[in-house]
Amino acid sequence: MKKPKYQLIVDFIKEKISKGEWAIGSRIPSQRKLAKMFVVNRSTVITALEELMAEGLIEGKAGMGTVVTNNTWTLMGNQSSLNWTENISLGTHKPSILTVQEINEAESDNNLIQLSKGELSPDTFPLEEMKSIIQKVSEQLTPFGYEEPKGNIKLREAISDYLKNRGMDVSPSSILVVSGALQALHLISIGLLQRGSTVFLEIPSYLYSLTVFQSAGMMLKGIRMDKEGIMVDSIYPINEKGKSILYTIPSFHNPTGTLMQEKRRNDVIEYCEREQLPIIEDDVYRDLWIDAPPPESLKSRDRYGNVLYLGSLSKTLSPGLRIGWIVGSESVINRLSDLKMQSDYGSSTLSQLVATEWLSCGLYNRHLENVRQQLKVRRNKALEALNKHLQFYATWEIPKGGLFIWIKVKPQFKVKKLFDKALSKGILLNPGSIYAEHSGHFIRLSYGAASLDEIEDGVYQLSEIIKNQ
Amino acid sequence: MKKPKYQLIVDFIKEKISKGEWAIGSRIPSQRKLAKMFVVNRSTVITALEELMAEGLIEGKAGMGTVVTNNTWTLMGNQSSLNWTENISLGTHKPSILTVQEINEAESDNNLIQLSKGELSPDTFPLEEMKSIIQKVSEQLTPFGYEEPKGNIKLREAISDYLKNRGMDVSPSSILVVSGALQALHLISIGLLQRGSTVFLEIPSYLYSLTVFQSAGMMLKGIRMDKEGIMVDSIYPINEKGKSILYTIPSFHNPTGTLMQEKRRNDVIEYCEREQLPIIEDDVYRDLWIDAPPPESLKSRDRYGNVLYLGSLSKTLSPGLRIGWIVGSESVINRLSDLKMQSDYGSSTLSQLVATEWLSCGLYNRHLENVRQQLKVRRNKALEALNKHLQFYATWEIPKGGLFIWIKVKPQFKVKKLFDKALSKGILLNPGSIYAEHSGHFIRLSYGAASLDEIEDGVYQLSEIIKNQ
Repeated sequence: MKKPKYQLIVDFIKEKISKGEWAIGSRIPSQRKLAKMFVVNRSTVITALEELMAEGLIEGKAGMGTVVTNNTWTLMGNQSSLNWTENISLGTHKPSILTVQEINEAESDNNLIQLSKGELSPDTFPLEEMKSIIQKVSEQLTPFGYEEPKGNIKLREAISDYLKNRGMDVSPSSILVVSGALQALHLISIGLLQRGSTVFLEIPSYLYSLTVFQSAGMMLKGIRMDKEGIMVDSIYPINEKGKSILYTIPSFHNPTGTLMQEKRRNDVIEYCEREQLPIIEDDVYRDLWIDAPPPESLKSRDRYGNVLYLGSLSKTLSPGLRIGWIVGSESVINRLSDLKMQSDYGSSTLSQLVATEWLSCGLYNRHLENVRQQLKVRRNKALEALNKHLQFYATWEIPKGGLFIWIKVKPQFKVKKLFDKALSKGILLNPGSIYAEHSGHFIRLSYGAASLDEIEDGVYQLSEIIKNQ
Repeated sequence: MKKPKYQLIVDFIKEKISKGEWAIGSRIPSQRKLAKMFVVNRSTVITALEELMAEGLIEGKAGMGTVVTNNTWTLMGNQSSLNWTENISLGTHKPSILTVQEINEAESDNNLIQLSKGELSPDTFPLEEMKSIIQKVSEQLTPFGYEEPKGNIKLREAISDYLKNRGMDVSPSSILVVSGALQALHLISIGLLQRGSTVFLEIPSYLYSLTVFQSAGMMLKGIRMDKEGIMVDSIYPINEKGKSILYTIPSFHNPTGTLMQEKRRNDVIEYCEREQLPIIEDDVYRDLWIDAPPPESLKSRDRYGNVLYLGSLSKTLSPGLRIGWIVGSESVINRLSDLKMQSDYGSSTLSQLVATEWLSCGLYNRHLENVRQQLKVRRNKALEALNKHLQFYATWEIPKGGLFIWIKVKPQFKVKKLFDKALSKGILLNPGSIYAEHSGHFIRLSYGAASLDEIEDGVYQLSEIIKNQ
């Protein structure tokens, strides 16, 4: 005899609870989610939940949804059980912003049109080259254990050469291999700044969508930008030494796409030298230029070791490698490498070997040429679609590289509503609000991930939503 | 004409300073190190340093060694420059303990006899299998980007099966893939405990040699052990809920090698359930049993989701993969996976694919059999050498698995001196003092990494040092 459907749900939840996977105090999935999981009506879910409530295993709590209140053992022994849920809200580090969590989750949904993802499309992935490089690495493999604290020396040499080609003369001992630029920020936040420090940054900025510095007890302070980049005049007077830092993305800024100009770069460097304000230069989009190479980095203008420079293979090759680097004064790099060891004992050997091979065999530069061609087609397609469908409803600048177009929707349209509506129609985009409080009228459109048809279709559908709003 | 040798040193240091790699305020290498680097007498180094001092670039500072005070630009412009060195001591996270830093550095010195390293010898590395697995992974490769927050689902399924074989019934959704057990501790420290919390742990414990919990503002409180494991009675009365946690290594404890017995495991679980004390079970040595499999884990006795369980491939296969896992209640795992995303956006795809293949193709279990055989030979060799050379000077227990023998040197011998002396003779071992304040008379000897001859030779030389002390 087949079990009734509600019983399947009861059994499933009981098992989760009794194995301790859904601990006491934790929320169970919403009725909507359960109905979807089991492909049943909501009424069937309700029948199941009522039975579990009757058994005393779950309980509806105001503002919390339905939570686990007991398990078979606590019921038996009448024993109060540990409540992990309390711990979840205790840690010093904040959870991600809710909208960001929602976007993160939706980004792995392949049925959506991804106008959100800040990464290259799988079409751009150099599969054959990657395969042959991995095979080469496996042929040359020797037994491997923990890596050197700063990262594999061959990889650091390859990064040093790579940087030399981009105007930066840096020894391998001044380079720390990290698992991407985000980890670099995490290490800097716990290792170089005291609680209460100020992080100056462009407004809007990608960094606002993260909680990395706030979690470490720092404040973010926005600096205005114009088309040339950060406006130096708008940096507030700086408080005591060692209590502030400037975070900037001078090349193909995320989310606005702005490219900081030559003169502005010199101004920023001069200002920061004079004011003894250290700089974090996040330069992960440098290689994604479309029309012309960007001006030289701030780091290449840095005569005092004032700039910590971040680079990565995530945006150009694949984020799955988890390989990036921090460049800075040796004493700073030593401190950060100790913290890297403390937090994960270094990055994956396999990833480091594969990255070394990519950077040193010439394939990387060839791959970049291909990426740039494809990005140009994609950007132009996006601009064409925007001109066709959105020119009366929005304005934007033409990005000269990177992955993003920063679109200002005319004030009468509510972008939060646009985001929700678009998502319900299968289009994922990033609302400007996650990048700065007063960026509510903007959306960030990525032309890197979706297909050309999807870009056209996505922009068209956005325009329809706006028209009908 | 060839430059004089001292000039080479001057030029080298000037370049480092002018490039900003040796920032103002940072210490330059010791005279001894420079002499070694340039293969010159110390007097040549002194000549070079005197010239640099005369130019105003460096300065000897009391208690600091020689530091960079200017660079060519600051001298030119008479401009005061940023002092990164201040920042280095500012971050919230502490640097590693000095002796530990010293050991970390010495562990990459292949000329030393490694009685210190807590990892398997390269002889045990399954090179051919690893090569063939990497090739298989490369053949089946598809374009890859960011992984799911909890880690590749195939890997989590493989870990779930692996755990099932060890008595733990856990769904993939209750598993978080991390870059080794240390990262697990880092995430727990910043995500689940508030500042001022207490971490109970065995005394001595590996955890004392780390600063992960102290950096996050927690206190460590030692619990006494006997031969059966943690003594439950010696856990202090617990303060408020959510403010303490127990960290334990029940199987082949690091550094003592102790194996917690069946009954004691039940006692610990019961005590912690009653007192609502959550447990971190660090079980990374489980598979390294030599004589017989250890009793089932605490996790497999856990009916309330009270235990966070840590496992890893670092001790059994290779630390270079950087693959480990945390198992716990789903809500806790969700919180930790959000933090994992915040700190590094997930672990390397390549490592995850290779780990999946190892766990699911049956090679891992075959590899473990081989490892156990080799470990048995190594342990027996170490015991034989100890009996032969050290029986009048020290005592120890026979470990039933894992990598370590915890040796109590008779009180009249000073272990710190023994450590220094041994290092000067080319033998690296871990002094007990890094694992607990009052473990000064112990040394931790690893039989995992050195060759059989080196184990014999190392122990013999230790005995000679002790005899002559």
